[in-house]
Amino acid sequence: MMAEIGVGLVGYKFMGRTHSNAYRQLPRFFDVDPAPRMTAICGRDEAGVRDAANTLGWESYETDYRRLIDRDDIGLVDVSTPGNTHRDVVIAALEAGKHVICEKPLANTLDEAKEMLAAARDAGTVNTVCFNYRRAPAVQLAKKLIDEGRLGTIRHWRSTYLQDFIMDPQFPLIWRLQKELAGSGALGDIAAHSVDLARFLVGDVSEVVGMMETFIKERPLEEAGAGGGLSASGGVETGEVTVDDAAAFLARFENGAIGTFEATRFAAGRRNQNGFEINGSKGSVAFDMERMNELDVFFVDDDADVQGFRTVNVTEPGHPYVGAWWPPGHIIGYEHTFVHTMKDLMDGIKAGKSPAPTFEDAYRVQAVLDAVERSAEGGGWTRPEVGGI
Amino acid sequence: MMAEIGVGLVGYKFMGRTHSNAYRQLPRFFDVDPAPRMTAICGRDEAGVRDAANTLGWESYETDYRRLIDRDDIGLVDVSTPGNTHRDVVIAALEAGKHVICEKPLANTLDEAKEMLAAARDAGTVNTVCFNYRRAPAVQLAKKLIDEGRLGTIRHWRSTYLQDFIMDPQFPLIWRLQKELAGSGALGDIAAHSVDLARFLVGDVSEVVGMMETFIKERPLEEAGAGGGLSASGGVETGEVTVDDAAAFLARFENGAIGTFEATRFAAGRRNQNGFEINGSKGSVAFDMERMNELDVFFVDDDADVQGFRTVNVTEPGHPYVGAWWPPGHIIGYEHTFVHTMKDLMDGIKAGKSPAPTFEDAYRVQAVLDAVERSAEGGGWTRPEVGGI
Amino acid sequence: MMAEIGVGLVGYKFMGRTHSNAYRQLPRFFDVDPAPRMTAICGRDEAGVRDAANTLGWESYETDYRRLIDRDDIGLVDVSTPGNTHRDVVIAALEAGKHVICEKPLANTLDEAKEMLAAARDAGTVNTVCFNYRRAPAVQLAKKLIDEGRLGTIRHWRSTYLQDFIMDPQFPLIWRLQKELAGSGALGDIAAHSVDLARFLVGDVSEVVGMMETFIKERPLEEAGAGGGLSASGGVETGEVTVDDAAAFLARFENGAIGTFEATRFAAGRRNQNGFEINGSKGSVAFDMERMNELDVFFVDDDADVQGFRTVNVTEPGHPYVGAWWPPGHIIGYEHTFVHTMKDLMDGIKAGKSPAPTFEDAYRVQAVLDAVERSAEGGGWTRPEVGGI
Amino acid sequence: MMAEIGVGLVGYKFMGRTHSNAYRQLPRFFDVDPAPRMTAICGRDEAGVRDAANTLGWESYETDYRRLIDRDDIGLVDVSTPGNTHRDVVIAALEAGKHVICEKPLANTLDEAKEMLAAARDAGTVNTVCFNYRRAPAVQLAKKLIDEGRLGTIRHWRSTYLQDFIMDPQFPLIWRLQKELAGSGALGDIAAHSVDLARFLVGDVSEVVGMMETFIKERPLEEAGAGGGLSASGGVETGEVTVDDAAAFLARFENGAIGTFEATRFAAGRRNQNGFEINGSKGSVAFDMERMNELDVFFVDDDADVQGFRTVNVTEPGHPYVGAWWPPGHIIGYEHTFVHTMKDLMDGIKAGKSPAPTFEDAYRVQAVLDAVERSAEGGGWTRPEVGGI
Repeated sequence: MMAEIGVGLVGYKFMGRTHSNAYRQLPRFFDVDPAPRMTAICGRDEAGVRDAANTLGWESYETDYRRLIDRDDIGLVDVSTPGNTHRDVVIAALEAGKHVICEKPLANTLDEAKEMLAAARDAGTVNTVCFNYRRAPAVQLAKKLIDEGRLGTIRHWRSTYLQDFIMDPQFPLIWRLQKELAGSGALGDIAAHSVDLARFLVGDVSEVVGMMETFIKERPLEEAGAGGGLSASGGVETGEVTVDDAAAFLARFENGAIGTFEATRFAAGRRNQNGFEINGSKGSVAFDMERMNELDVFFVDDDADVQGFRTVNVTEPGHPYVGAWWPPGHIIGYEHTFVHTMKDLMDGIKAGKSPAPTFEDAYRVQAVLDAVERSAEGGGWTRPEVGGI
Repeated sequence: MMAEIGVGLVGYKFMGRTHSNAYRQLPRFFDVDPAPRMTAICGRDEAGVRDAANTLGWESYETDYRRLIDRDDIGLVDVSTPGNTHRDVVIAALEAGKHVICEKPLANTLDEAKEMLAAARDAGTVNTVCFNYRRAPAVQLAKKLIDEGRLGTIRHWRSTYLQDFIMDPQFPLIWRLQKELAGSGALGDIAAHSVDLARFLVGDVSEVVGMMETFIKERPLEEAGAGGGLSASGGVETGEVTVDDAAAFLARFENGAIGTFEATRFAAGRRNQNGFEINGSKGSVAFDMERMNELDVFFVDDDADVQGFRTVNVTEPGHPYVGAWWPPGHIIGYEHTFVHTMKDLMDGIKAGKSPAPTFEDAYRVQAVLDAVERSAEGGGWTRPEVGGI
Repeated sequence: MMAEIGVGLVGYKFMGRTHSNAYRQLPRFFDVDPAPRMTAICGRDEAGVRDAANTLGWESYETDYRRLIDRDDIGLVDVSTPGNTHRDVVIAALEAGKHVICEKPLANTLDEAKEMLAAARDAGTVNTVCFNYRRAPAVQLAKKLIDEGRLGTIRHWRSTYLQDFIMDPQFPLIWRLQKELAGSGALGDIAAHSVDLARFLVGDVSEVVGMMETFIKERPLEEAGAGGGLSASGGVETGEVTVDDAAAFLARFENGAIGTFEATRFAAGRRNQNGFEINGSKGSVAFDMERMNELDVFFVDDDADVQGFRTVNVTEPGHPYVGAWWPPGHIIGYEHTFVHTMKDLMDGIKAGKSPAPTFEDAYRVQAVLDAVERSAEGGGWTRPEVGGI
Repeated sequence: MMAEIGVGLVGYKFMGRTHSNAYRQLPRFFDVDPAPRMTAICGRDEAGVRDAANTLGWESYETDYRRLIDRDDIGLVDVSTPGNTHRDVVIAALEAGKHVICEKPLANTLDEAKEMLAAARDAGTVNTVCFNYRRAPAVQLAKKLIDEGRLGTIRHWRSTYLQDFIMDPQFPLIWRLQKELAGSGALGDIAAHSVDLARFLVGDVSEVVGMMETFIKERPLEEAGAGGGLSASGGVETGEVTVDDAAAFLARFENGAIGTFEATRFAAGRRNQNGFEINGSKGSVAFDMERMNELDVFFVDDDADVQGFRTVNVTEPGHPYVGAWWPPGHIIGYEHTFVHTMKDLMDGIKAGKSPAPTFEDAYRVQAVLDAVERSAEGGGWTRPEVGGI
């Protein structure tokens, strides 16, 4: 009989839905031990969380994360709320001796992240951060090629993460556009993924120089007040956008590779173009999340007359994770990256070993983003603060 | 409180898995009434079906389809076994007053299909056939463009369904390669999908001329006997491949359009390339299941200097089905087409109206395939037998 | 000192321009012996041909092809006029002992083609037909891979030649739409290229079954008469379209491969999509003339985890022809295929050996097209008439 | 009768070939007045230049550029030699009252460029710099869309220029790898093109921050000495690479747009991938020189259900330049960009107006590159020196 671990999920919006789906699907496609049990979901609004429990398939719900954490039938706490709440929930869970998976970014500030990392080390339980794109089979294949030396010495990292969902100046001032809630804008939300992928595939970043830009500086408030959203003067009430619409930076890696990163929410026509290219001395790979089942691969040593980027459909039984799903050529989607994340988390819990990206990995990502912010303010090359961790 | 309908699924292999997943996922993402209840799964091998029930999430299991059909808690029978068994199970279920969804092809012969169609009409319950590719959002978008007249008069259908999984001559003689079990080879297995898509998007086929080919005529038996799979002479035991490896045909549609169809399991490098292109007087669309989230669309009336095929990422909230899943640019996969199929089935059950493709649609598909087979034997243009249905 | 051969070009419209360019460019990029000398161009309209001689760079002009052929300074006659004139000019040139290059199709009827083939054999001079697409470097690379056995046994040929330039019903009744001038429509004009490519790459066709369709059966006359283009009743004068707008056929090759062919001028958005795919037991290739510098190549024996179609940019020094042009990655265009054709023609003249496709090759192409036409009329599988040639 | 202008071309290697071809082809496809007359080519090595004159089609040759410039039959001097020689030849030509076209980069240093700009202004003749990629029809189409406001306010420029031809450590120390001859490496050779395109399409750059990297710091000498290329110790003689293998920089444009640029010769598999993407408030365009006949175009205002990047095949009669060549869908190549450059140069000479990019434009490009170099050394954001020109 398979062992189970009770999961308590904090948060029930977008990420709550992706994580719930992952726990639900995981044991249907993978042999896992323990299997996740969807014990309780938590949110402050009782009506909302009750509905979510029902729709998403949770056995019970809580409206206070502390009660959730106190429950004995919860062994794993999953934190899927906005970044400004991560610190408190995560530390409480760790102190209660729970395993923890936290959505990215680990925290909104480097200081918070450091505190959380310390707590995780003290707790000694399993911790991980949900940078889900690592678990696209094509990304894992890229990692395998690099680890096996098939791309040779890595020289270049080149990533873009392009979206366009806030281009309309009338798009409201949602929480993602407010620094006190989101920490930063395109940088923390999407460039964070690129930094995690870069660290996973190339290695640690030693210094960066960057810029950040806010194209639309004032936006309508999201929820108009009792006055119908009109200000005293009769206009629509607006507020200041306090995060970046776009960010770009150059990087040097510790192993000598160099990199470029760009993230924006103003690339018309690019819905979720999360792409990268890596060039090594023996080959290259290129990836785009909008065609996430494909990896473009080039080898310098292919016969001279037939060299070219191969479009590998990463759906073969031998490819990472994907043999558990459908036959070759039958593609999977965005949500599957979360299922794979939970698969590795269950294996980690079994083994007593935190699966990467751990809190330390996420701290290092955060330190890169922090260095970019400091560089964007101050103007020069800046080193991530990773001393003493 | 949402109503439920008990589902009884016959078959637990590849299609059993896709259908189980669909029932499981459906109420998590769509408001459905009734919701499917995963009441029982059925298969002849008790150990196998018991495991399947557990892994796939069914409440109980049966080893005899007649017992399944007899159960009062089953309102919908889902037939996901190989084609040679469809007739008996389907007719029994219909006679028991159940709603029925049947995997494609409806039957292995046109005569069986006709019998099943008659039984469905007599039963008056809801019937449908699982040609799942219709329910890719991009295919539905193509349908919408055509129905709204945005492609004008349709002139051309051009489809290929290319696979390569049996190219190795040592690949064994599985059931799909035996006429008595599978009915036909590439024709019935994959060209059937193309014919369903063509009927859905362009209309009925009036005549065809075709060819069929078997490149590897003898293969090792799948399960070697007691003698270790060696024949008396010491060689590996082999058997005759009695279906087509590849089929191709030309077609005329009743509305004046013309079409080409090709299906093969010998297209090296094409894992599951199920594609089509449609050209009308005002525009064109092109689709490939390996990039199923995209539809290429061309309009004759676009400004002259910027005419070109648009790669539409069919993941917007307004696109068919897909708003129920993830934000724009976050792609879905193969399995979702089955969820969408079950969504429409539940709506059909509610409304008392069989969702297309109905048994009649599937009969008409079968009639086209039958005409291709007859043409391939006899050599000339051949009309599908659809009179008197 | 390099030898020269005087060229006499008959025709100065579209093909006259492409051939003139080829003779002009050839010695600038390739070492050829003899080099072509642009001696004289010929056309019936004196003003037109005089202008063409000047613009295209010919030393002199003639208004009667017989005078051109009589000239001693002409060693090679190039026939680039519409198909209905080929027979007379070509046979006269051959009888005068000239080398001959003729535009495709060789003739408008199989009988004429047979006569021309006989004349070529009697003459003993060098003859060739300008199926220029063979000389795209990517097509030559495909040929090389096949000849070297790198694709294994060929199973499938799949070609489309898609255009859209006559979709507007107001597009006039140009000569290409009149059977007595053009012989046939999409079939002879563009499917002819596909048949030549198929013979080049796969081999001879043993039988075909086909269909032809004319979507717009009546069109405005190209040049309105003295009456201002209005008929007696005041409407625009129109005439009947006597050729096919689209043609499609299935084929069996002598070596056991099977093929599909389609050609149309009604594929909205496809300007000149001349593409094919070939599947063999060890690999596949795919080509599209709109991206003519690329060949997609797949090998069954590539490492299992990195199998995929390679997009080979066929611009490397070792690739056919292309080393004579620019560095890798610097692409060439449509016109270069004609330069390559003339390169091989000059080599053939030097060697006294007709370069493929010879008149015999072109006759065999014509016989396939003729069989398609007969099949489209009569309805069944039809064999090309190649006996006794 | 068409007027002619005598051209004197200095340099007969790679760029000498592309320019010669352009002069040869220009009057065959475009009505130009004056037409270029290929009067004389110039190079120091008499045997080499004599051969080149013959092969490339020049009427005469010179071995001293001063003699070339002195000739009365030369009205236009074309400088196609490496960058370290530009200043002397260009200034001499300008002082002799000639029109001048100079290959990019204008000079190896900003000081030289400033001197040349001053000389051009004093001369008052027509001057231009051959940034040929501007004249790809697809790039001109992008420019047209921007100028007509169809992309709205420009927010993002994103360019890569990726090559891989020096990845092998045994690739010799050619002149392009020596700072005293080439000025810089990837930066001046290829990023220069990206900067020209960015200025053309987006506008002037106000500040940059960049990095440069040399991966292979020592290489075999190109021409081994008398000692057989072996050093005293018996090894192969090597020398230091004094230019960058790769360069990357961030930029702010004066109009508020932001940009990223990267150029490298170490991107395995990218032969000549010169690409950019521009995002505006109303749309986007993307271009890649390896598919130079295509422009990807997105419009925010397209109907919601069919938004997507259009692949525009820029070969229509109404597209820039391309109507002079072949019918729609018949692509052109790299060399045609030079023909278009010479077309505009002839028009400029007729009109007495220097066609962009003028020496001033090229100076401004140079100033950006110079700022990148200074930033790469010093570490911070740096402004191009364009004051007082």
